[in-house]
Amino acid sequence: MSKQVISVFGLGSMGFGVACSALAAGHHVYGFDVDPDSQSRFLAKGGDQASVADAGARSHVVVSVVLNGAQTADVLFGDKGIVAHMRPGSVVVSCATLAPDLARDLAARCDAFQVLYLDAPISGGSVKAAEGALTMMASGSSSSFDAAKPTLDAIAQTVYRLGDEAGPGSAMKAVNQLLAGVHIAAMGEALTFGISQGVDAARIVEVISKCAGTSWMFENRAPHVVNGDYTPHSAVNIWLKDLGIVLDVAKGSNFSAPLAAAALQQFVAAAGQGLGGEDDAAVAKVYAHNAGISLPKAK
Amino acid sequence: MSKQVISVFGLGSMGFGVACSALAAGHHVYGFDVDPDSQSRFLAKGGDQASVADAGARSHVVVSVVLNGAQTADVLFGDKGIVAHMRPGSVVVSCATLAPDLARDLAARCDAFQVLYLDAPISGGSVKAAEGALTMMASGSSSSFDAAKPTLDAIAQTVYRLGDEAGPGSAMKAVNQLLAGVHIAAMGEALTFGISQGVDAARIVEVISKCAGTSWMFENRAPHVVNGDYTPHSAVNIWLKDLGIVLDVAKGSNFSAPLAAAALQQFVAAAGQGLGGEDDAAVAKVYAHNAGISLPKAK
Repeated sequence: MSKQVISVFGLGSMGFGVACSALAAGHHVYGFDVDPDSQSRFLAKGGDQASVADAGARSHVVVSVVLNGAQTADVLFGDKGIVAHMRPGSVVVSCATLAPDLARDLAARCDAFQVLYLDAPISGGSVKAAEGALTMMASGSSSSFDAAKPTLDAIAQTVYRLGDEAGPGSAMKAVNQLLAGVHIAAMGEALTFGISQGVDAARIVEVISKCAGTSWMFENRAPHVVNGDYTPHSAVNIWLKDLGIVLDVAKGSNFSAPLAAAALQQFVAAAGQGLGGEDDAAVAKVYAHNAGISLPKAK
Repeated sequence: MSKQVISVFGLGSMGFGVACSALAAGHHVYGFDVDPDSQSRFLAKGGDQASVADAGARSHVVVSVVLNGAQTADVLFGDKGIVAHMRPGSVVVSCATLAPDLARDLAARCDAFQVLYLDAPISGGSVKAAEGALTMMASGSSSSFDAAKPTLDAIAQTVYRLGDEAGPGSAMKAVNQLLAGVHIAAMGEALTFGISQGVDAARIVEVISKCAGTSWMFENRAPHVVNGDYTPHSAVNIWLKDLGIVLDVAKGSNFSAPLAAAALQQFVAAAGQGLGGEDDAAVAKVYAHNAGISLPKAK
């Protein structure tokens, strides 16, 4: 496998794992984050640093793992945007959840610099990111897949190729986030409803996990509520952002999405109650508060 | 295993399988259905028939697999109700989805006849019913579990014992139905949303099934939409009933359940469009109609 020079933008819970997975595979990795502590942590792991201009000129691949579309646009084309420094034939791998229209726009702007663009949202959480075992929903030209291949091999376990231009990758991610967000809120609704009927929370998780009402998110998040542990693996605020994107895209296509809208409102209420930084399972607290019941305490 | 005399009320898609599973295990089974054709089909399988009075006097176990709470109450205590004919110590196994309060009420009315009552909703669909492999969410006294044991062994693969009185069984079933109904509607919403963004429906099922957005219902129902096959395994109308029960119970406990409410409205719209007898995956047609897009046709 050929070794690449890679610049990773965003060294948060996902990006740090991505950057370290690339390092572990033997690539040369420049790390960028607005937080100097994150940057120092990455240097301690064997990462490198450089100016945006130098890193851009040297990199085969730029991986953007920032929070949203606005940050992605800024990393690529802002005052200190890297694309203007990149060599023709190098490639941007854009991992944030963003609207398909924005993905198409960013790809076109990269194309003007003869820089390739892979619309490549990721799924799997910080643990999979650290293991180099993410799932990637990707679309773009064959050239862009080829140019990024050694990097993708290092950071993703599965790469779905969903089309030969930007857009379908982000659209598939939006489909996943619609379901994931609705399922987390549904977990909160159902678990708290069961408690309101006098059923033991742990028993609900045990039984429903074996029944037709289960979901990946139910099995993953309901134990957080049972254990009273709201350490943020994925925060409530993520869903204000991601369900917001889903609903913006939906509205732009005259697509009515009442479940996504109802779920978003529960996460908004959670944020409004000061729970935005807690684990997204804390959406259950909104239901409990509204029903005047108590959830299990931390052990 | 001791052989029992069993009366099964309701020989629909679930009850017929329950009754045949009991037969297959060597029990003597009386079948009852308002539809003479169902009754004849059961006789042809080796089942028996008798008057309600005679069947009641002879049965160790009465299994009620009718549509809802009103039908259950009618089977047990209506003009031709069976409980008045049952022997002390015999047991009613009530399988319909109904409100926990009604389960408690029916149990108390059985108790006045010294008849035991098992609050025992079932999950698993008609295929599992035919295989004697249902999941049962049951609560009731040890005596009622003991009295029904040979029958339960014949019809259920897993029996969760959720408490020593009626109520928790029905409550757990309501939790499951809340999730299942929301997840089916979410499947319709997400799959159709993806199609509206130009993503291939079959590809969505392939990718999402491996991602955090998946659910048991997504994996089971989304292929119906991809194949354009709305043969009713479980009909849209079931969800008007079951989510209606969930929301009635919730309202009775001052429990706000916005996702269940939003999902119910999509099923109501499906029924209003004449799709009440189609497979519940047809809820996707409501989304498609609202967005002016087409779903895959039958192959």
